[in-house]
Amino acid sequence: MFIIGELLNGMYKEVGEAIKKKDKSVIQRIAKEQVARGAGALDLNCGPVSKDPVQDMQWLIQAVQEAVDIPLSLDSTKANVIAEGLKLVKNKAIINSTSADAEKLEILVPLAIQYNASLIGLTLDKKGVPQDKDRRLELAARIVADCQEKGFPVENLYIDPIVLPVNVAQNQARDVLEVLREFKIISDPPPKTVVGLSNVSQGTCNRSIINRTFLAMAIGAGLDAAILDPLDKELMNVLITSELILNKQIYCDSYLDAYRKK
Amino acid sequence: MFIIGELLNGMYKEVGEAIKKKDKSVIQRIAKEQVARGAGALDLNCGPVSKDPVQDMQWLIQAVQEAVDIPLSLDSTKANVIAEGLKLVKNKAIINSTSADAEKLEILVPLAIQYNASLIGLTLDKKGVPQDKDRRLELAARIVADCQEKGFPVENLYIDPIVLPVNVAQNQARDVLEVLREFKIISDPPPKTVVGLSNVSQGTCNRSIINRTFLAMAIGAGLDAAILDPLDKELMNVLITSELILNKQIYCDSYLDAYRKK
Repeated sequence: MFIIGELLNGMYKEVGEAIKKKDKSVIQRIAKEQVARGAGALDLNCGPVSKDPVQDMQWLIQAVQEAVDIPLSLDSTKANVIAEGLKLVKNKAIINSTSADAEKLEILVPLAIQYNASLIGLTLDKKGVPQDKDRRLELAARIVADCQEKGFPVENLYIDPIVLPVNVAQNQARDVLEVLREFKIISDPPPKTVVGLSNVSQGTCNRSIINRTFLAMAIGAGLDAAILDPLDKELMNVLITSELILNKQIYCDSYLDAYRKK
Repeated sequence: MFIIGELLNGMYKEVGEAIKKKDKSVIQRIAKEQVARGAGALDLNCGPVSKDPVQDMQWLIQAVQEAVDIPLSLDSTKANVIAEGLKLVKNKAIINSTSADAEKLEILVPLAIQYNASLIGLTLDKKGVPQDKDRRLELAARIVADCQEKGFPVENLYIDPIVLPVNVAQNQARDVLEVLREFKIISDPPPKTVVGLSNVSQGTCNRSIINRTFLAMAIGAGLDAAILDPLDKELMNVLITSELILNKQIYCDSYLDAYRKK
């Protein structure tokens, strides 16, 4: 399970203020904490209020790279923020994200090829977020076909079915779990899958248990990667236990500690 | 999700002693507690050391029925213990269990028809517990076919793929999760599915988290029923949350409390 730490996002007050004040110490502490708790990559998002997102993203990348040497996920809806950010990333980069719209694929797939980056493809287009499973599958297939045409290796593509909050779109979580399996039959080799986990509990009163229950279900459905909070210890315990159950790590009585010492 | 409370089992010291001493108060307290925490049926098992299992099962049934009015799962490998027990069950009965062996099916399927009972069918025969998914599917198909031939409604059949402890048969949990889905394509209408949940963590040091993580994964794979400990509050929280995620109950902020007040 590939863990992308979600906490370096300007929508969190502490991070948003640190980006505004260019306070590296806060950013670097959060970067190190996430890596220490098992993140294999860090998502970087300047947040909705950034006035100069290109400059903010570049500052964020540099601040993080001074503290940790780990793949970085450049999270922006603006292609130029990603393009300018990629120039600075030293380790592997993840482009987060393209939609299924041709004009985004036109820019971002070649960038992913140029930088040998991974690419997250959202099952989304100008018509909005799908309301059912078939539409998610259709949009995923469109992204996969576009990557194949352009020569981008599908193994480096992560399809994100877009998890919606259970309190506003309760009928869709089941579709997401089912479609995670179905993405695997789009192509051979299949695309990988990723979710933005915390979305599932957005606005609910029991965030952690909803996150961790949905995570276990999604890992059971074959999920490859998740953008999540690695500092949520209970969540990480469920993630580690899910991998144990699926025989992805060897059992020992202290398997939770053993995982963390790796 | 149909919850069968597992605690009235003679292998637990307190229950074993109560059966031996014919102490109804212990049995009735445990029966009431399980029902209060959400059990929809109670499993009754005299345990391995019972010297007169027919008499012990009959005493257990009567003791429980004085305290609660709920379906009872008669849990014994001995067909005569089940046959004699069925005579006393007032509410719905569940026969736990038949194997795929013809001589067990010969006795237990007609009994299930006679008493309008549900039947748990283990994917097991004289050759032992299957080591892979295909063998589980084969044995399940044999049980389903036998029920169809004898005129027992497959909707009242619960196939149990036999969950093994993750510390001794780590490669099998994934097979069990996959085969839970595949059982559903054996027949139309499909059989229901059940697991003896606590087996997955037998002998491990982190029983509760292994149980609840596996439960979420199994519910995600379409599990219909589980024999489990309804007094494990964290486990029940995961069960309730899994149902919420699958849209089987309406979201409200206090959905955990709302479920328990039902």
